[in-house]
Amino acid sequence: MFERMLIIGVGLIGGSLARALKELNAVGEIIGAGSSIQSLERGIELKVIDRFSTDLPTLAAESNIVIIASPISAMGALFRQIAPSLMPTTIVTDVGSIKGSIVDLARKEFGAAFSRFVPGHPIAGMEKSGVANSFPELYRKRRVILTPVAETDPEALRMIRQMWESVGAKVIEMSVEKHDRVLAAISHLPHVLAYSLVEHLNRHKYKDDGFDLVAGGFYDITRIASSDPEMWRDICLGNRSFIADSLASYAKELQVIGEAIENNDGEFLAELFRRAKIARDSIVLERSGNQGR
Amino acid sequence: MFERMLIIGVGLIGGSLARALKELNAVGEIIGAGSSIQSLERGIELKVIDRFSTDLPTLAAESNIVIIASPISAMGALFRQIAPSLMPTTIVTDVGSIKGSIVDLARKEFGAAFSRFVPGHPIAGMEKSGVANSFPELYRKRRVILTPVAETDPEALRMIRQMWESVGAKVIEMSVEKHDRVLAAISHLPHVLAYSLVEHLNRHKYKDDGFDLVAGGFYDITRIASSDPEMWRDICLGNRSFIADSLASYAKELQVIGEAIENNDGEFLAELFRRAKIARDSIVLERSGNQGR
Repeated sequence: MFERMLIIGVGLIGGSLARALKELNAVGEIIGAGSSIQSLERGIELKVIDRFSTDLPTLAAESNIVIIASPISAMGALFRQIAPSLMPTTIVTDVGSIKGSIVDLARKEFGAAFSRFVPGHPIAGMEKSGVANSFPELYRKRRVILTPVAETDPEALRMIRQMWESVGAKVIEMSVEKHDRVLAAISHLPHVLAYSLVEHLNRHKYKDDGFDLVAGGFYDITRIASSDPEMWRDICLGNRSFIADSLASYAKELQVIGEAIENNDGEFLAELFRRAKIARDSIVLERSGNQGR
Repeated sequence: MFERMLIIGVGLIGGSLARALKELNAVGEIIGAGSSIQSLERGIELKVIDRFSTDLPTLAAESNIVIIASPISAMGALFRQIAPSLMPTTIVTDVGSIKGSIVDLARKEFGAAFSRFVPGHPIAGMEKSGVANSFPELYRKRRVILTPVAETDPEALRMIRQMWESVGAKVIEMSVEKHDRVLAAISHLPHVLAYSLVEHLNRHKYKDDGFDLVAGGFYDITRIASSDPEMWRDICLGNRSFIADSLASYAKELQVIGEAIENNDGEFLAELFRRAKIARDSIVLERSGNQGR
């Protein structure tokens, strides 16, 4: 499909994509780049990538497709480094969990090449990160959201869609705004709540007894508080206004429940809990061995 | 250990205790009672109980120990029904998730027998309920909290402790106040948050896309929103003031985080997320096949 692919950021996400495409013989050569030489060397050892270099402009000049799987905070600088040397046909995509601020950066840095930038977000991941944990089945049955904008070249979009579908993903297209609003509700807000819940117990009068007594409920509800703090700082800042919206409307929800508790309004509580239980029970996850975030 | 045990409420909790004690030959006869005749008949079929009856006063009069494993909302009436006919040596204990309001009811209804009421709370349970799901290993390595009060007879306390230890539980004693504050933080508040999070998505502009896209993170953080709505209404009302306290301090936590997000304060967020991650990573669950709530 592609003669030469550059993956910037060879970790769980980039590495799993590389492995899956290699299994399919879909790429001639996969080149790695990124800030961690150790990860890149490990990627060579594990045959996830064929070679690597730190000379990004040169790598960009010889690649037909560039996958940006680096931390969100690094993306602006990366866009700037590769933009001038991209071939006129090279397609670029990313895997960031937020889309609005990444699209803004890409529009600013890529110039004319922006039309061949396809904003993407595979809903996949697990607690373990790093190239050593990557595996070719990560994307099977997982959703990948693409958020093309007015400038996006339909052919570039088609090729990125095809790439994700070839590794088993189900591709969905939606607007940047919808993506960022929906992800704020189903992923970003939940992470903030989980971190806050642990922090609430950290500050509790009976903190030690609390941590000593936690059972499966607390354990599961705070699982995502074990996620990478820097990554989640970047997501919070990068999707600031929609997360703030979600947080505000969630806080209102809590206030209403708090008032029902104080007013002894059992009917209201039972009704809300029943409605939530029905909605929660209706969720069916299609898993492929590991859980997406 | 006991000649005749009465279990009121033969479900997962009461049934698992019965099965474990039977395996140990620790009880001469186990009698069931409760509001669901179907559960009691099933309990006989499964050999969890030896017989059952709906005549509570008579059952109470012939039992050496009474385990109250019924819904919290039924406890006041049950206490009232059994109190007059209890033998002067009969010990009573309960398994309710809240202790303050149950102890208040018991003090009011039991009269002189209150000294032989040992308030208890096994931290065990799973999503599946009912006697058909009960199993003798449920309490292995699980914590059971006993909250004796000034009136509690030390011998009654010792026997209930011994009963729980015999089925593999680790027994902890603490004050009613400490129990209800700690459980508000590690169990009751988390349930309220999970229900609210589902409700927040229920009211979301892009509700359908949201439910369609949820991945493992949302799935796990809302798992406890699949819990029994009536039980959680009762817990919210029964532990009203400590849950309201926890909710208020949690809401403040969220407000601070919301402000940090709006003020673009990445340093504050990363620091808080790191602190929470360290605390969460330090939690080690001792599980015995199933997860406690």
